[in-house]
Amino acid sequence: MERNGHFQLTYMITANSRSDATKLAESIRVEQSVEMPIDALPAGASRALGEIVSINPSNEEDFWMVSISYPNFLAGGDITQLINILYGNISLYPGIKVVNANDHYFNGHFNGPSFGLKGIRELLNRKDQKPLSCTALKPVGLSANELAERARLFARGGIDIIKDDHGVTDQQSASFHDRVSACVQAVRTGEQHSGKKTLYFPNITTSPVKILSRFQEAVELGADGVLICPQLAGLETLHEIAKFNQIPIMAHPSFSGGYIIHKTSGFTPSFYYGKLWRALGADAIIYPNAGGRFTLSVDTCLEMNEQMRIPFCGFNPALPTPAGGIHLNTIPDLLNLYGHEICYLVGGSLYQHPSGIEKATKQFTQLMEAHDE
Amino acid sequence: MERNGHFQLTYMITANSRSDATKLAESIRVEQSVEMPIDALPAGASRALGEIVSINPSNEEDFWMVSISYPNFLAGGDITQLINILYGNISLYPGIKVVNANDHYFNGHFNGPSFGLKGIRELLNRKDQKPLSCTALKPVGLSANELAERARLFARGGIDIIKDDHGVTDQQSASFHDRVSACVQAVRTGEQHSGKKTLYFPNITTSPVKILSRFQEAVELGADGVLICPQLAGLETLHEIAKFNQIPIMAHPSFSGGYIIHKTSGFTPSFYYGKLWRALGADAIIYPNAGGRFTLSVDTCLEMNEQMRIPFCGFNPALPTPAGGIHLNTIPDLLNLYGHEICYLVGGSLYQHPSGIEKATKQFTQLMEAHDE
Repeated sequence: MERNGHFQLTYMITANSRSDATKLAESIRVEQSVEMPIDALPAGASRALGEIVSINPSNEEDFWMVSISYPNFLAGGDITQLINILYGNISLYPGIKVVNANDHYFNGHFNGPSFGLKGIRELLNRKDQKPLSCTALKPVGLSANELAERARLFARGGIDIIKDDHGVTDQQSASFHDRVSACVQAVRTGEQHSGKKTLYFPNITTSPVKILSRFQEAVELGADGVLICPQLAGLETLHEIAKFNQIPIMAHPSFSGGYIIHKTSGFTPSFYYGKLWRALGADAIIYPNAGGRFTLSVDTCLEMNEQMRIPFCGFNPALPTPAGGIHLNTIPDLLNLYGHEICYLVGGSLYQHPSGIEKATKQFTQLMEAHDE
Repeated sequence: MERNGHFQLTYMITANSRSDATKLAESIRVEQSVEMPIDALPAGASRALGEIVSINPSNEEDFWMVSISYPNFLAGGDITQLINILYGNISLYPGIKVVNANDHYFNGHFNGPSFGLKGIRELLNRKDQKPLSCTALKPVGLSANELAERARLFARGGIDIIKDDHGVTDQQSASFHDRVSACVQAVRTGEQHSGKKTLYFPNITTSPVKILSRFQEAVELGADGVLICPQLAGLETLHEIAKFNQIPIMAHPSFSGGYIIHKTSGFTPSFYYGKLWRALGADAIIYPNAGGRFTLSVDTCLEMNEQMRIPFCGFNPALPTPAGGIHLNTIPDLLNLYGHEICYLVGGSLYQHPSGIEKATKQFTQLMEAHDE
């Protein structure tokens, strides 16, 4: 039963017996609230203590599902503090994995995507339901003009979204200002050839203190969206930028591996990318796809896709964007697997193509268009 | 050999053979620099590619030490981008652990602690070489005045540092402004009884966008230092605040577990807390101590203590601050183990003490003073 004025978090924990599971659940509810021995807790603070709602064996041996409720006032309406309560000190324990939080956790604090899947489609003037195409502008080391020339070719090929590589930031070889100016212009030129809209998302990831002005610079230079690595720039930074509601944000998983690749700790990828990042306002969410050079399973990817789009706290659906080792020749299988409410990010396979970037991109977008809705 | 204009990173990787280790090292140097197939790399960007310096078997079977060098320009002088190169996308791979970065990685970008171990001793007017005492002000849920009363008792007991619990932020029960105002005054009152200086470090952790103004508010209200959870507020946020050089920063490990508790991935705790956080400007560094409710070994803790204090890029030594389940009765053993260039953080054991906070604190500080240098 849900308690008024409380939110509820669910963990999968590792324990040999119900008694051990109960001990660990007791530790969690204390660690994540008052963080002191209960026998020394003053009466005035007892309402702050987390409460165990349920402890149930999971389907897998030695794993238990534990739900704990916390009073809303613990977070003081602060998103960073909500994340602290979710997985702050217990990130230092082995055998605790975040699997869910109920709607009371998100409601009234998080806003979800400002644009999301539908908003990005609208910016693209796409009335059909075909899947979207995306690429990464790279490599770092090229000049602003060299990168812009590549952007122009992608746009001529009719790609939907060009995002900067997450390693392209503000290097001497191509400063942020020069690169974004040149690429915006190049994309507008390329669009005239394709007759289609192409969105350019420069990477604004930098110090949390500087990122807001870099975001504004991107907007002023005519960028259609931005790329952010939330785990590098600070998770709530994503939310702060989403609140501007100006242009869409594509979130990149760099530096987030420690939270999602371990079986017995961290977060389920579905919760972390699909719920938390969506709640924080990521309009499109890049994740490491199965079958490439990363290690998530197809089932996990399907769960993420679903979680990014299903009704959730009234938030806009986000655009799932699988990436990492997707080749033109694996796209047809992926289309069958993931369907059309998705954006496919292809990088290397387009750069390697013997016919060059423009023709490779055309082939890529034709694969998207050939997909039956 | 070190290459001019390059920095060098060292990883421990998991591989069954030299050939597999070489394949993974190849992946790392590409993933963390140009992130595209080498056969498609344009000539203008070949200088951006990471270079393998060495691949050597480690002392343990199936582990290899890999050193890779990257050109400085890749980071563009941006600390967030330096962290991205260190462990961005490869955080999503299994079997890669950051163990070191050479001085060229840090020099010219990071500043290290503004105060550090010595600066904090100076603020305390401590001419001796005795270890320092610290406690956490809690629990969340008490009013500002109730928390201040506890702070007064700790100060009367002669404690060196009172830091807010990292779960005490800006709750309705005790707003940031009211709490800090009341606690600063209470500590100043308590000091008059003890005749000793006590430093109060409120927790300023919040959204990266709001944290600078909260820091300034803390300074204006007379706080002696601040507590930050860098992994929640954004790693470079720590550096941005340290640059003000106004009051010391104590860094707290909340939400950092995913990076340090896993044997085969993440960072060694010694590198992560001892080098990276020190370089980012943490004056005192709280870490989860061995033997408490966390899982690091005594050897790991000794390595961290050492790494926080040894000569390193000309940075000030940081103050190692072990925490988590340290009790008054385990202090003597810890003193023998860790020595005097350290700060012991004791929370629950002082609140639980049958004689009350002030007497418990007195006992704690007497243990510190009795320690032979």
